[in-house]
Amino acid sequence: MKTHPMKLVTVVCEALARVPLLQLLKSHGVHGYTLFPVEGTGARGERPADIEEFANIQVEVIVPAAVADALVEKLHRDFLPQFAAIVYVTAVEVLRPEKF
Amino acid sequence: MKTHPMKLVTVVCEALARVPLLQLLKSHGVHGYTLFPVEGTGARGERPADIEEFANIQVEVIVPAAVADALVEKLHRDFLPQFAAIVYVTAVEVLRPEKF
Amino acid sequence: MKTHPMKLVTVVCEALARVPLLQLLKSHGVHGYTLFPVEGTGARGERPADIEEFANIQVEVIVPAAVADALVEKLHRDFLPQFAAIVYVTAVEVLRPEKF
Repeated sequence: MKTHPMKLVTVVCEALARVPLLQLLKSHGVHGYTLFPVEGTGARGERPADIEEFANIQVEVIVPAAVADALVEKLHRDFLPQFAAIVYVTAVEVLRPEKF
Repeated sequence: MKTHPMKLVTVVCEALARVPLLQLLKSHGVHGYTLFPVEGTGARGERPADIEEFANIQVEVIVPAAVADALVEKLHRDFLPQFAAIVYVTAVEVLRPEKF
Repeated sequence: MKTHPMKLVTVVCEALARVPLLQLLKSHGVHGYTLFPVEGTGARGERPADIEEFANIQVEVIVPAAVADALVEKLHRDFLPQFAAIVYVTAVEVLRPEKF
Protein backbone atom coordinates (compact mmCIF):
# COMPACT_ATOMS: atom_id res chain seq x y z
CA MET A 1 0.00 0.00 0.00
CA LYS A 2 1.43 3.34 -0.98
CA THR A 3 1.89 5.93 1.75
CA HIS A 4 2.78 9.58 1.21
CA PRO A 5 5.32 11.78 2.99
CA MET A 6 3.70 14.44 5.16
CA LYS A 7 4.63 16.40 8.27
CA LEU A 8 3.24 15.91 11.74
CA VAL A 9 3.34 19.26 13.54
CA THR A 10 3.05 18.97 17.32
CA VAL A 11 2.33 21.89 19.63
CA VAL A 12 2.49 21.47 23.40
CA CYS A 13 1.11 24.55 25.10
CA GLU A 14 -0.86 25.83 28.04
CA ALA A 15 -4.54 24.91 27.82
CA LEU A 16 -5.40 28.61 27.93
CA ALA A 17 -3.94 28.90 24.42
CA ARG A 18 -6.37 26.37 23.03
CA VAL A 19 -8.76 28.72 21.23
CA PRO A 20 -6.13 30.99 19.64
CA LEU A 21 -4.15 27.92 18.55
CA LEU A 22 -7.15 26.24 16.92
CA GLN A 23 -8.04 29.54 15.21
CA LEU A 24 -4.49 29.85 13.90
CA LEU A 25 -4.66 26.29 12.53
CA LYS A 26 -8.02 26.95 10.92
CA SER A 27 -6.70 30.13 9.29
CA HIS A 28 -4.03 27.95 7.61
CA GLY A 29 -6.65 25.62 6.24
CA VAL A 30 -5.74 22.77 8.55
CA HIS A 31 -8.51 20.20 8.41
CA GLY A 32 -8.47 17.95 11.41
CA TYR A 33 -6.36 17.81 14.52
CA THR A 34 -6.03 15.66 17.58
CA LEU A 35 -5.86 17.24 21.01
CA PHE A 36 -5.30 15.70 24.41
CA PRO A 37 -4.38 16.99 27.86
CA VAL A 38 -0.84 16.38 29.09
CA GLU A 39 0.96 17.02 32.28
CA GLY A 40 4.29 18.70 31.99
CA THR A 41 7.08 20.65 33.52
CA GLY A 42 8.56 23.63 31.79
CA ALA A 43 10.21 26.85 32.81
CA ARG A 44 7.15 27.75 34.88
CA GLY A 45 7.12 24.56 36.93
CA GLU A 46 4.83 21.54 37.07
CA ARG A 47 1.36 21.66 35.60
CA PRO A 48 -0.76 18.73 36.58
CA ALA A 49 -3.24 17.83 33.84
CA ASP A 50 -6.07 17.49 36.33
CA ILE A 51 -6.00 21.16 37.28
CA GLU A 52 -7.80 22.40 34.21
CA GLU A 53 -6.69 26.01 34.25
CA PHE A 54 -2.99 25.15 34.53
CA ALA A 55 -3.05 22.12 32.29
CA ASN A 56 -1.12 21.75 29.08
CA ILE A 57 -2.51 20.37 25.86
CA GLN A 58 -0.79 18.53 23.04
CA VAL A 59 -2.18 19.30 19.61
CA GLU A 60 -1.11 17.29 16.55
CA VAL A 61 -1.84 18.04 12.92
CA ILE A 62 -0.70 16.35 9.72
CA VAL A 63 -0.04 18.64 6.78
CA PRO A 64 1.97 18.77 3.56
CA ALA A 65 5.56 20.02 3.99
CA ALA A 66 4.82 23.47 2.55
CA VAL A 67 1.94 23.99 4.97
CA ALA A 68 4.13 22.82 7.86
CA ASP A 69 6.71 25.47 6.94
CA ALA A 70 4.09 28.21 6.83
CA LEU A 71 2.53 27.02 10.08
CA VAL A 72 5.86 26.93 11.92
CA GLU A 73 6.65 30.42 10.64
CA LYS A 74 3.29 31.71 11.82
CA LEU A 75 3.57 29.99 15.20
CA HIS A 76 7.01 31.48 15.69
CA ARG A 77 5.86 35.00 14.85
CA ASP A 78 2.40 35.20 16.37
CA PHE A 79 1.95 32.38 18.88
CA LEU A 80 5.23 31.76 20.73
CA PRO A 81 5.65 35.38 21.87
CA GLN A 82 2.31 35.13 23.68
CA PHE A 83 2.10 31.57 25.00
CA ALA A 84 4.35 29.03 26.70
CA ALA A 85 4.69 26.42 23.98
CA ILE A 86 6.91 23.84 22.32
CA VAL A 87 6.64 23.23 18.58
CA TYR A 88 8.21 20.34 16.70
CA VAL A 89 7.87 18.64 13.35
CA THR A 90 8.13 14.92 12.57
CA ALA A 91 8.32 13.28 9.14
CA VAL A 92 5.52 10.75 8.72
CA GLU A 93 4.15 8.52 5.96
CA VAL A 94 0.40 8.83 5.60
CA LEU A 95 -2.25 6.57 4.17
CA ARG A 96 -5.02 8.42 2.30
CA PRO A 97 -3.29 11.83 2.05
CA GLU A 98 -6.31 13.19 0.15
CA LYS A 99 -7.95 13.56 3.55
CA PHE A 100 -5.50 16.31 4.59
CA MET B 1 23.39 1.59 23.63
CA LYS B 2 22.30 0.13 20.35
CA THR B 3 18.79 0.92 19.18
CA HIS B 4 17.01 -0.75 16.26
CA PRO B 5 14.96 0.77 13.44
CA MET B 6 11.28 -0.03 13.71
CA LYS B 7 8.01 1.57 12.61
CA LEU B 8 5.51 3.33 14.82
CA VAL B 9 2.06 2.90 13.28
CA THR B 10 -0.52 5.40 14.58
CA VAL B 11 -4.24 5.06 14.04
CA VAL B 12 -6.61 7.85 15.06
CA CYS B 13 -10.20 6.68 14.81
CA GLU B 14 -13.62 6.86 16.34
CA ALA B 15 -13.81 5.12 19.72
CA LEU B 16 -16.53 2.85 18.31
CA ALA B 17 -13.86 1.23 16.16
CA ARG B 18 -11.83 0.17 19.16
CA VAL B 19 -12.70 -3.53 19.29
CA PRO B 20 -12.38 -4.22 15.54
CA LEU B 21 -9.08 -2.31 15.46
CA LEU B 22 -7.59 -4.24 18.38
CA GLN B 23 -8.77 -7.51 16.80
CA LEU B 24 -7.15 -6.53 13.50
CA LEU B 25 -3.88 -5.77 15.33
CA LYS B 26 -4.02 -9.04 17.22
CA SER B 27 -4.61 -10.96 13.99
CA HIS B 28 -1.31 -9.49 12.71
CA GLY B 29 0.53 -10.71 15.78
CA VAL B 30 0.99 -7.26 17.23
CA HIS B 31 2.04 -7.62 20.85
CA GLY B 32 1.40 -4.50 22.80
CA TYR B 33 -0.16 -1.18 21.96
CA THR B 34 -0.86 2.10 23.66
CA LEU B 35 -4.29 3.68 23.45
CA PHE B 36 -5.55 7.01 24.71
CA PRO B 37 -8.60 9.18 24.07
CA VAL B 38 -8.17 12.27 21.95
CA GLU B 39 -10.38 15.09 20.92
CA GLY B 40 -10.42 15.91 17.28
CA THR B 41 -12.05 17.51 14.33
CA GLY B 42 -12.37 15.73 11.06
CA ALA B 43 -14.79 15.66 8.18
CA ARG B 44 -17.62 14.84 10.57
CA GLY B 45 -17.03 17.78 12.89
CA GLU B 46 -15.74 18.14 16.44
CA ARG B 47 -15.67 15.17 18.77
CA PRO B 48 -14.96 16.12 22.34
CA ALA B 49 -13.05 13.38 24.16
CA ASP B 50 -15.31 13.60 27.19
CA ILE B 51 -18.38 12.45 25.28
CA GLU B 52 -17.47 8.79 25.27
CA GLU B 53 -19.61 7.63 22.35
CA PHE B 54 -18.32 10.32 20.01
CA ALA B 55 -14.74 10.31 21.22
CA ASN B 56 -11.75 9.43 19.13
CA ILE B 57 -8.93 7.22 20.22
CA GLN B 58 -5.28 7.23 19.22
CA VAL B 59 -3.69 3.80 19.06
CA GLU B 60 0.06 3.38 18.63
CA VAL B 61 1.96 0.19 17.89
CA ILE B 62 5.63 -0.45 17.20
CA VAL B 63 6.39 -3.14 14.66
CA PRO B 64 9.12 -4.22 12.23
CA ALA B 65 8.91 -2.54 8.80
CA ALA B 66 7.49 -5.63 7.08
CA VAL B 67 4.69 -5.91 9.63
CA ALA B 68 3.97 -2.18 9.25
CA ASP B 69 3.54 -2.66 5.50
CA ALA B 70 1.16 -5.58 5.99
CA LEU B 71 -0.77 -3.72 8.67
CA VAL B 72 -1.17 -0.59 6.54
CA GLU B 73 -2.36 -2.73 3.64
CA LYS B 74 -4.90 -4.48 5.83
CA LEU B 75 -6.10 -1.22 7.40
CA HIS B 76 -6.54 0.28 3.96
CA ARG B 77 -8.55 -2.65 2.68
CA ASP B 78 -10.64 -3.70 5.66
CA PHE B 79 -10.70 -0.88 8.21
CA LEU B 80 -10.76 2.48 6.41
CA PRO B 81 -13.83 1.68 4.32
CA GLN B 82 -15.82 1.12 7.52
CA PHE B 83 -14.48 3.65 10.03
CA ALA B 84 -13.44 7.30 10.09
CA ALA B 85 -9.71 7.01 10.67
CA ILE B 86 -6.28 8.43 9.97
CA VAL B 87 -3.29 6.10 9.64
CA TYR B 88 0.35 7.19 9.59
CA VAL B 89 3.76 5.62 10.03
CA THR B 90 6.81 7.11 11.74
CA ALA B 91 10.36 5.77 11.69
CA VAL B 92 11.62 5.18 15.23
CA GLU B 93 14.67 3.69 16.91
CA VAL B 94 13.76 1.20 19.60
CA LEU B 95 15.58 -0.13 22.63
CA ARG B 96 14.99 -3.86 23.29
CA PRO B 97 13.38 -4.73 19.93
CA GLU B 98 13.08 -8.35 21.07
CA LYS B 99 10.00 -7.22 22.96
CA PHE B 100 8.08 -6.52 19.73
CA MET C 1 11.65 29.63 9.94
CA LYS C 2 14.66 27.57 10.86
CA THR C 3 14.07 24.42 12.89
CA HIS C 4 16.77 22.32 14.53
CA PRO C 5 17.24 18.55 14.62
CA MET C 6 16.63 17.05 18.05
CA LYS C 7 15.52 13.70 19.43
CA LEU C 8 12.15 12.89 20.93
CA VAL C 9 12.63 10.15 23.52
CA THR C 10 9.41 8.32 24.43
CA VAL C 11 9.05 6.04 27.43
CA VAL C 12 5.89 4.00 27.95
CA CYS C 13 5.93 2.40 31.39
CA GLU C 14 3.82 1.39 34.34
CA ALA C 15 2.53 4.38 36.29
CA LEU C 16 4.31 3.05 39.38
CA ALA C 17 7.60 3.95 37.69
CA ARG C 18 6.67 7.60 37.42
CA VAL C 19 8.78 9.03 40.24
CA PRO C 20 11.98 7.08 39.47
CA LEU C 21 11.63 7.93 35.77
CA LEU C 22 11.21 11.65 36.41
CA GLN C 23 14.16 11.57 38.80
CA LEU C 24 16.28 9.82 36.18
CA LEU C 25 15.32 12.48 33.62
CA LYS C 26 16.09 15.29 36.04
CA SER C 27 19.49 13.76 36.81
CA HIS C 28 20.28 14.04 33.08
CA GLY C 29 19.38 17.72 33.07
CA VAL C 30 16.20 17.20 31.09
CA HIS C 31 14.15 20.38 31.34
CA GLY C 32 10.54 19.75 30.52
CA TYR C 33 8.56 16.67 29.67
CA THR C 34 5.03 15.77 28.76
CA LEU C 35 3.27 12.92 30.51
CA PHE C 36 -0.15 11.39 29.91
CA PRO C 37 -1.89 8.18 30.92
CA VAL C 38 -2.29 5.47 28.31
CA GLU C 39 -3.96 2.16 28.23
CA GLY C 40 -1.92 -0.70 26.90
CA THR C 41 -1.31 -4.35 26.56
CA GLY C 42 2.10 -5.83 27.04
CA ALA C 43 3.55 -9.09 28.26
CA ARG C 44 1.66 -8.69 31.53
CA GLY C 45 -1.76 -8.24 29.92
CA GLU C 46 -4.15 -5.33 29.63
CA ARG C 47 -3.81 -2.30 31.83
CA PRO C 48 -6.78 0.01 31.63
CA ALA C 49 -5.77 3.64 32.12
CA ASP C 50 -8.64 4.26 34.51
CA ILE C 51 -7.30 1.85 37.12
CA GLU C 52 -4.65 4.16 38.49
CA GLU C 53 -2.36 1.58 40.08
CA PHE C 54 -2.17 -0.57 36.95
CA ALA C 55 -2.15 2.24 34.46
CA ASN C 56 0.66 3.00 32.08
CA ILE C 57 2.05 6.42 31.36
CA GLN C 58 3.68 7.81 28.25
CA VAL C 59 6.45 10.30 28.92
CA GLU C 60 8.00 12.33 26.10
CA VAL C 61 11.11 14.50 26.24
CA ILE C 62 12.96 16.41 23.55
CA VAL C 63 16.73 16.50 23.88
CA PRO C 64 19.87 16.95 21.76
CA ALA C 65 21.14 13.74 20.14
CA ALA C 66 24.02 13.33 22.60
CA VAL C 67 21.67 13.59 25.58
CA ALA C 68 19.31 11.08 23.94
CA ASP C 69 22.17 8.60 23.65
CA ALA C 70 23.13 9.03 27.30
CA LEU C 71 19.52 8.79 28.40
CA VAL C 72 18.85 5.60 26.42
CA GLU C 73 22.02 4.07 27.86
CA LYS C 74 20.97 4.96 31.40
CA LEU C 75 17.39 3.72 30.86
CA HIS C 76 18.74 0.44 29.52
CA ARG C 77 21.06 -0.07 32.48
CA ASP C 78 19.10 1.24 35.43
CA PHE C 79 15.42 1.50 34.47
CA LEU C 80 14.47 -1.40 32.19
CA PRO C 81 15.71 -4.11 34.57
CA GLN C 82 13.28 -2.82 37.22
CA PHE C 83 10.20 -1.67 35.31
CA ALA C 84 8.02 -2.86 32.43
CA ALA C 85 8.77 -0.23 29.81
CA ILE C 86 9.21 0.53 26.13
CA VAL C 87 11.74 3.15 25.03
CA TYR C 88 11.99 4.62 21.54
CA VAL C 89 13.59 7.59 19.85
CA THR C 90 12.19 9.70 17.01
CA ALA C 91 14.02 12.32 14.97
CA VAL C 92 12.22 15.68 15.17
CA GLU C 93 12.79 19.24 14.00
CA VAL C 94 12.30 21.75 16.79
CA LEU C 95 11.48 25.43 16.84
CA ARG C 96 13.29 27.37 19.60
CA PRO C 97 15.84 24.67 20.54
CA GLU C 98 17.32 27.02 23.14
CA LYS C 99 14.43 25.98 25.37
CA PHE C 100 15.76 22.42 25.67
